[in-house]
Amino acid sequence: MQKKKIESEKIILGIDPGTTILGYGLIKINGKNAELMILGSIELKKYGDHYLKLKTIFDRITQLIDEYHPDELSIEAPFYGKNVQSMLKLGRAQGVAMTAALQRSIPIFEYAPRKVKMSITGRGSASKEQVALTLQKLLKIKNLPQNLDATDGLAVALCHYYQTSGTVGKDISPYKSWKDFINQNAKRIKKN
Amino acid sequence: MQKKKIESEKIILGIDPGTTILGYGLIKINGKNAELMILGSIELKKYGDHYLKLKTIFDRITQLIDEYHPDELSIEAPFYGKNVQSMLKLGRAQGVAMTAALQRSIPIFEYAPRKVKMSITGRGSASKEQVALTLQKLLKIKNLPQNLDATDGLAVALCHYYQTSGTVGKDISPYKSWKDFINQNAKRIKKN
Repeated sequence: MQKKKIESEKIILGIDPGTTILGYGLIKINGKNAELMILGSIELKKYGDHYLKLKTIFDRITQLIDEYHPDELSIEAPFYGKNVQSMLKLGRAQGVAMTAALQRSIPIFEYAPRKVKMSITGRGSASKEQVALTLQKLLKIKNLPQNLDATDGLAVALCHYYQTSGTVGKDISPYKSWKDFINQNAKRIKKN
Repeated sequence: MQKKKIESEKIILGIDPGTTILGYGLIKINGKNAELMILGSIELKKYGDHYLKLKTIFDRITQLIDEYHPDELSIEAPFYGKNVQSMLKLGRAQGVAMTAALQRSIPIFEYAPRKVKMSITGRGSASKEQVALTLQKLLKIKNLPQNLDATDGLAVALCHYYQTSGTVGKDISPYKSWKDFINQNAKRIKKN
């Protein structure tokens, strides 16, 4: 059943692809309001076979596209990696996820991990947990998933909205500064 | 129109994927006889947009699969590269080509470039031209294409046949040794 969209409405699918886990998040933009639709992750480690992993990425992303009809795909794409082998594998996972969008003519946008963190928290070196907590406030998420890879997917969706709408993350962030973030989340931040 | 296949018949699609050019070749195996169906290359350099390149790879490989109904995909896959960026791009091109096969449930086999050259010519360090000339003899190709990327795609298809059929390339190669290859092709081998 096709739901009618109002003109300024836009749906963004964010993906943080990997070969062991893939995080995804969908947000609906309504005017200046960003609303969480769904977030989740696809466990790929359990599939021993490399091609089965790739096939699963393709099938699940295609499924998400056909269910939620995103207008744009935002993808987290590191440009540096530990070694050439890991980059080749990552490239494959990215290529497969991108194909799912391309076959439905959905435009793709890429953001480096640092850019995503900076856009959400105002700090390029923020931890996964810091990104998750900021997202929780911004999108009023009741319960964060245990697996924070899902929030990484969501982060790149919101990052794309901030980057393209002229709405800088910092302006609508619930935190005035990094110090403010620490103060408001002191109890929730893991100590190393 | 679906052609009836005899039981021992098998069609192999070979691909040498890249982000500037993609070579492909299709062979039909009939008992112990390998026959050329088609070879060609997809020029990707002309597409400035990275995603348009990926979309073109997906569409063209899907088209080849739907037209020639290959039973298996054999893909040339270097495991080492100049740098992480080039490997990421290569991984994307590979991932897209693999998705085309995976969506049609076609099994995928990978071979390193050295393995392909070794399998066809008996020498892992053979040049593109040496591989092409050997293929021309083996598959009785009248005219080689100017662009040797197409023969690279064909080589990985034939390599897969040799590797899986127990028919070692050397045994059916028209050359007894590397020296024999040089002697028979003296005029055709470029001098540096």
